[in-house]
Amino acid sequence: MQSIEIIETSSYLPHKQISNTFLNEKFNLPENWIYKRTGIKNRYYITSEETIVDLAIHVAKDILTKTTIDVQKIGNIIVASTSSDRIMPGISFEVQKALNIQKCTCLDIVAGCSGFINAFNIARQGLVLGDTEYALVIGVETISKFLNFEDVGTSILLGDGAGATLIGITSHFKKYQSDIQSIGQSGDILTCHHGEKLYMNGKAVYKYAVTKVIENIQDVVNKANETLDTIKYIIPHQSNIRILNSIAEKLLLEKSKIYVNLDKVGNTFCASIPIALDEMCEKKVLQKR
Amino acid sequence: MQSIEIIETSSYLPHKQISNTFLNEKFNLPENWIYKRTGIKNRYYITSEETIVDLAIHVAKDILTKTTIDVQKIGNIIVASTSSDRIMPGISFEVQKALNIQKCTCLDIVAGCSGFINAFNIARQGLVLGDTEYALVIGVETISKFLNFEDVGTSILLGDGAGATLIGITSHFKKYQSDIQSIGQSGDILTCHHGEKLYMNGKAVYKYAVTKVIENIQDVVNKANETLDTIKYIIPHQSNIRILNSIAEKLLLEKSKIYVNLDKVGNTFCASIPIALDEMCEKKVLQKR
Repeated sequence: MQSIEIIETSSYLPHKQISNTFLNEKFNLPENWIYKRTGIKNRYYITSEETIVDLAIHVAKDILTKTTIDVQKIGNIIVASTSSDRIMPGISFEVQKALNIQKCTCLDIVAGCSGFINAFNIARQGLVLGDTEYALVIGVETISKFLNFEDVGTSILLGDGAGATLIGITSHFKKYQSDIQSIGQSGDILTCHHGEKLYMNGKAVYKYAVTKVIENIQDVVNKANETLDTIKYIIPHQSNIRILNSIAEKLLLEKSKIYVNLDKVGNTFCASIPIALDEMCEKKVLQKR
Repeated sequence: MQSIEIIETSSYLPHKQISNTFLNEKFNLPENWIYKRTGIKNRYYITSEETIVDLAIHVAKDILTKTTIDVQKIGNIIVASTSSDRIMPGISFEVQKALNIQKCTCLDIVAGCSGFINAFNIARQGLVLGDTEYALVIGVETISKFLNFEDVGTSILLGDGAGATLIGITSHFKKYQSDIQSIGQSGDILTCHHGEKLYMNGKAVYKYAVTKVIENIQDVVNKANETLDTIKYIIPHQSNIRILNSIAEKLLLEKSKIYVNLDKVGNTFCASIPIALDEMCEKKVLQKR
């Protein structure tokens, strides 16, 4: 089985910064209340002049400025999102158009917060099966469009943003193991229907996250014949600092093993992992190639 | 490389039948005008009591009544649609819940009319890479919700429906070749944004379909080291009889090689191929397993 590598990363946050101070005033909250509960200091919203497609194209074009690969060799563009404004054409198709790639397969994926890992996994399958040389995987959200600004719980947590990874085959051995588990049975704890606002049962999501995510981490490590000791970093969906701290405690992990950038960007759903990956690469915490 | 097989199929059409007579009256059209231009006699719309999730669950449950496989061994549920009413949880997650599958990966896919073949291809990748034993692939549409009933062109063509295939690994050799090409550059000829109605530039879609689809058929046959002579049936997206006839003519194919069920169901977007597959299996034109 061929190995894959992350060749490049990119991320983008819209200009409209939403600080805790702004939200404290809006919801009449005491200072530090939001940070204590969420670990978040800032999040970003798009302005009326930006669309979800603009964000996706931004990271796609940026990633190409950082690499010398022939853009026509990107055979797969997969975009994960839970806040698209469109059914047809998908965001991925707009990215193809903006990059003017002549032949590739485009897909938009809807799978809740796990959209990006699903997209990454599908892109990897196409690479190892020889369908294409390179794949562009994007996570993008403009979840601010779906926020109910009467609901403190979601308004303080969520933000907009985009992240991308360019991946390809490598001749070096690189371990890969996935274990993606959906639980539709819990689908009613976090919902968003077209024309309606996002609804989250915060307590139920917390309970879900601190039990199911732990099982999932243990499962994927076991499947890979590793132990948590051999894992250098866990890059989780940036949900909420209380969830991430609880995961670290229950797994008896040093907190530093769990990468956190929640404070700066909030919970950006499908964009959270690729934004974190890009930040880690920028800081040289992770090495590309 | 392991082979895959279609174990079972299912399809469902809502009860509200929309005949050409009804549309002739609505748009003041001469008799036979619709049939001559589209090859369609009937299409179906959901009633206010049905949702897209109901349609998907219907075909999922039906397929399980036809097989003895353990439902818990379905490790992947992929739903393709261009007319979902929801962002979270996806339709696939509702199917998991309805079937009460404990562990599986759920995904909704948005990729225009090619959603089903993309979903099928992703499911196959998971199977051949050993991620799961069985996968459920569903194409479902309630496109009537997005129709502009002032626009004759789309109103006479499109309809609702659902189709599903249950696929799995087989020890028998079965040839598989995919070649899925997106052209985001032509994205503006068929659009649908949330809160808006579907728009189609019929002439441009016709031109696209009779050129790009032909190239695509030739490409996939070449990649598979086959010729059109060795292909028994082409099961195209059921777009419009003029497009399908033009494809047959340009490829010098007997019309009978191209399976057509447009007359009975109309163009059901992502549901069209699995509905056709189910009909072919019912008629024993295709054999399962």
